[in-house]
Amino acid sequence: MSAVSAQRAASLSPDLLRRMDAYWRAANYLSVGQIYLRDNPLLEEPLTLAHIKPRLLGHFGTTPGLNMLYVHLNRLIVEHDLDMINIIGPGHGGPGLVAHTYLEGSYTEHYPAIERSRSGMHRLFRQFSWPGGIPSHVAPETPGSIHEGGELGYSIAHAYGAAFDNPDLIVACIVGDGEAETGALATSWHSNKFLNPARDGAVLPILHLNGFKIANPTVLARIGHDDLRDLLRGYGYAPHFVEGDDPMLVHQQLAATLDLALAEIKAIQHEARAGTGPSTRPRWPMIVFKTPKGWTGPKVVDGKPVEGTWRAHQVPIADFKNPEHLVQLDAWLRSYRPEELFDEHGKFREEYAALAPTGHRRMGSNPHANGGALLKPLALPGFRDHAVAVAQPGVAKAEATRVLGGYLRDVMKLNLDAANFRLFGPDETASNRLDAVYAVSGKVWMAETEAIDTDLSQDGRVMEVLSEHLCQGWLEAYLLTGRHGLFSCYEAFVHIVDSMVNQHAKWLKVTKGIPWRRPIASLNYLLTSHVWRQDHNGLSHQDPGFLDHVANQTADVARIYLPPDANCLLSVADHALR
Amino acid sequence: MSAVSAQRAASLSPDLLRRMDAYWRAANYLSVGQIYLRDNPLLEEPLTLAHIKPRLLGHFGTTPGLNMLYVHLNRLIVEHDLDMINIIGPGHGGPGLVAHTYLEGSYTEHYPAIERSRSGMHRLFRQFSWPGGIPSHVAPETPGSIHEGGELGYSIAHAYGAAFDNPDLIVACIVGDGEAETGALATSWHSNKFLNPARDGAVLPILHLNGFKIANPTVLARIGHDDLRDLLRGYGYAPHFVEGDDPMLVHQQLAATLDLALAEIKAIQHEARAGTGPSTRPRWPMIVFKTPKGWTGPKVVDGKPVEGTWRAHQVPIADFKNPEHLVQLDAWLRSYRPEELFDEHGKFREEYAALAPTGHRRMGSNPHANGGALLKPLALPGFRDHAVAVAQPGVAKAEATRVLGGYLRDVMKLNLDAANFRLFGPDETASNRLDAVYAVSGKVWMAETEAIDTDLSQDGRVMEVLSEHLCQGWLEAYLLTGRHGLFSCYEAFVHIVDSMVNQHAKWLKVTKGIPWRRPIASLNYLLTSHVWRQDHNGLSHQDPGFLDHVANQTADVARIYLPPDANCLLSVADHALR
Ligand SMILES: Cc1ncc(C[n+]2csc(CCOP(=O)(O)OP(=O)(O)O)c2C)c(N)n1
Ligand SMILES: Cc1ncc(C[n+]2csc(CCOP(=O)(O)OP(=O)(O)O)c2C)c(N)n1
Repeated sequence: MSAVSAQRAASLSPDLLRRMDAYWRAANYLSVGQIYLRDNPLLEEPLTLAHIKPRLLGHFGTTPGLNMLYVHLNRLIVEHDLDMINIIGPGHGGPGLVAHTYLEGSYTEHYPAIERSRSGMHRLFRQFSWPGGIPSHVAPETPGSIHEGGELGYSIAHAYGAAFDNPDLIVACIVGDGEAETGALATSWHSNKFLNPARDGAVLPILHLNGFKIANPTVLARIGHDDLRDLLRGYGYAPHFVEGDDPMLVHQQLAATLDLALAEIKAIQHEARAGTGPSTRPRWPMIVFKTPKGWTGPKVVDGKPVEGTWRAHQVPIADFKNPEHLVQLDAWLRSYRPEELFDEHGKFREEYAALAPTGHRRMGSNPHANGGALLKPLALPGFRDHAVAVAQPGVAKAEATRVLGGYLRDVMKLNLDAANFRLFGPDETASNRLDAVYAVSGKVWMAETEAIDTDLSQDGRVMEVLSEHLCQGWLEAYLLTGRHGLFSCYEAFVHIVDSMVNQHAKWLKVTKGIPWRRPIASLNYLLTSHVWRQDHNGLSHQDPGFLDHVANQTADVARIYLPPDANCLLSVADHALR
Repeated sequence: MSAVSAQRAASLSPDLLRRMDAYWRAANYLSVGQIYLRDNPLLEEPLTLAHIKPRLLGHFGTTPGLNMLYVHLNRLIVEHDLDMINIIGPGHGGPGLVAHTYLEGSYTEHYPAIERSRSGMHRLFRQFSWPGGIPSHVAPETPGSIHEGGELGYSIAHAYGAAFDNPDLIVACIVGDGEAETGALATSWHSNKFLNPARDGAVLPILHLNGFKIANPTVLARIGHDDLRDLLRGYGYAPHFVEGDDPMLVHQQLAATLDLALAEIKAIQHEARAGTGPSTRPRWPMIVFKTPKGWTGPKVVDGKPVEGTWRAHQVPIADFKNPEHLVQLDAWLRSYRPEELFDEHGKFREEYAALAPTGHRRMGSNPHANGGALLKPLALPGFRDHAVAVAQPGVAKAEATRVLGGYLRDVMKLNLDAANFRLFGPDETASNRLDAVYAVSGKVWMAETEAIDTDLSQDGRVMEVLSEHLCQGWLEAYLLTGRHGLFSCYEAFVHIVDSMVNQHAKWLKVTKGIPWRRPIASLNYLLTSHVWRQDHNGLSHQDPGFLDHVANQTADVARIYLPPDANCLLSVADHALR
């Protein structure tokens, strides 16, 4: 336990602690049940092989940690009436999210067949996992989610994108320590230089330091406490460490630390909004949550350590030809004491269920996580008013994107009050000739400024950072929470986000088949600096392949337009933003 | 100036300082000359519009910083007889590299028409830039380069890839502070957990903190000294700060700091190689080089500050319709005092030229930067010895990649002494069933270890990190410096490196047309976890699109094989590694 956390006093009453722990056990029980059981959901009979699924899938390792965090975020929401969503970097912990949304009631409201009863639980267990069942990862199907976490690396970028222009929202963001090794994640921490505490919501990053990936230790778990602290401070955060493997002690530490982090968030926001504090970049809190991978699972299987190792990553006990394994699984499941948690009808006991938030405060029912429902159309200027006059064919000369810049300036202006439109680019907005927008809105910048700077502003709505990943990730989440935007990028380097584009397209595709998911605004790219315009950059800047990449999508997910001149570009922009 | 650097004493004699500064001025003069002049290369006549190129291209801003570093690295090489190459993250500083390789003689050896004389200099200036001339970026055409730096973000990964298994090599790596915002770069700093000082060479990262990108300040320049120091310490380095805008003071500081950094590198290597020190991960030195963007260029143009701002990024004075600009350019060029630097025949004066290293010690002629010339074929086992016996069609069952794992184990074994083969994967080597290799070589890991860890080793030749960017970047540079490797990756997530793949393919394509570049080994991918094998991961893990992406390359650059069974896979592996 670190010195910092040791100083924090216990903050949960014995009764609350007992009930929160029970809630956690219930979520863990339902997670393990989804992975293993096809029958006997309440363990009312002795466990037999016939109750176990024939093919075992899913990821247990990360799940108990995610589950504990969810219980504690629930407490915070209830005590402070918070508007909060939860982004899960290690999305393979899907069973945990399904379990929690089921416990709080959101799941059943979205999927009435999965009742809060024995038979509902039975179906809950059986429907896991894909194909044929529900996805094993957090997915569009999961209530409360805007982030799949299948391809790792985008949790923090998504968290910030959701928080922009949502002043009352707090986005808890659980980052896998393996995920933290990816490029996209490693730069995402710097998003705090682009979030304005007066205008935007808050992001609370929680580094889930469970020490292991699929088959290796993680870098961040093995650099020592001091390097990790320095790294996170260097990224601009005030890290708070929660560490342990005794659930009762960790519950207390985590509760105290969350109270502290929330108080820090509120203080930062209060100062910024009252205009009393200095207008410098605040040092936002974050949490390092160091607990065992596969916590509460089997400690040893076949003589090999499992809890607290990479061996817990997926299914800790697999092969049931060994009769010992059945005994172990039985003991593991019963260690959660399901009979204490669920009544004889399989209903979660009210004593515990009452801990969850209600209505839209439940993270599985928060409207921000179904952004289409919040979507308001943009107010758009008449694009014809920006048209280049063409007296006769072939006479007018115009820079197409400069003309578009004037149009986007007006889009920006008309929607300033609605605060639901942003422009994204990797340090290329000016070289893409869109700089007319600065007349209405600068580039957001919370870091230090110097007298010579121009067009930077803490209130800016143009997002410029030299990371295509951040532009894409921020914009995806901004859209997924019901807003609008445009990403302008050199054609050659937009390939950097090929994989993100595919994952977003898949999300959209699946969403179309989910009745309760409302359509969101389109992700608009403006590709510039085309293959034939490389007089000063050369071959490395030539790559027309993104069109190919996008053309692999079906027409109801992606559209490509090739406007040949300024006026066509205006018309396309009008169409895309509508 | 930081406290640390202030303590360091001046280390250059007045005469050496004078000559090094002259060398720097010469490199700057040649860089500006390339950007601006088509005639009058030595400014023997008064400058007129007729001497200026009609279309001005290139990037000046980063160049004076790169140029100063090159002069100082030269001093270090000469004084210590170092084997050193130089990787330039901001590759758009191409004119600087061309200038330096010209001054040291490497350029003329590669391109005899570009003599070290007035007419050679004339041609040097006129040939810049693409199309029609040489690339404006560091490129395959540039002697001494293995890194283009057009698409930003891969400098550090390339530097480490070059250093692996090259114990006597030091790779200086200049990182743009803008480049540092990219995802790939942000995670690359952690490469130091995978470099073994006993066996591998050293990387000396130099963060080029010139404060600005194309049109914005950089994040790292605006987070304050303490956050930056913490960040770099958190990444595991000992940062040394060099800071100023008075060339004479900066020369002294930089020289002293480089001496210090080299001493630290030598001490780390000595301890590791003598086996006397603790075998923990060393804290490698690095340098933060904080100098003005566009240093020595015009301070103000049209009333706007240029030196020390983003306005210096490309061509600081552009429009020559304004007669004042011609006067400014003339003064700027003459400020380097070309008549002091070059004799009446346009030859670099011996007094200065003598500062450069000679032969293969010149960074423009270092053999590691033309890896094909060093390439030795792998010793390969008979792949038929690993074949699955198939008594009759359709009867044998085998896991194809597990069989391949046995073959790769033998490849690893046969080439252990040559130390020129490595296996790369994003935490997937075991789940891809290649774990048989661990019998011969573990996974390299210089970070902390715990008793439960398995298959980790400081001497390992399997590279596992949860970053597809790092796997790709390390391997590219490992190949470009004349070695061999294989990257195994889930099919869906290999899209993360789409853009890197294209840039590498373009490098290879251009290389084929450069007589002095020798062919290097192929970059071999093993794609696993295919689209139809997603029983537990689901849609996010389905994406067969990388084949499409690669199929856009021509057949002399890329090949695709689809081995249907274990034995075909063996044969393909044998073919690819040959
Ligand atoms: C970009 C990417 N590369 C590889 C994988 C394969 N993969 C799935 S889970 C995992 C390990 C994740 O470790 P961590 O983020 O620490 O999650 P946890 O340990 O909490 O499960 C890997 C490498 C992936 N999902 N995404
Ligand atoms: C991945 C990528 N995105 C965008 C660009 C366009 N671009 C070229 S130079 C540059 C700014 C680079 O800044 P820095 O790395 O600090 O270099 P320096 O200031 O030394 O020129 C940008 C954004 C690029 N080359 N690569």
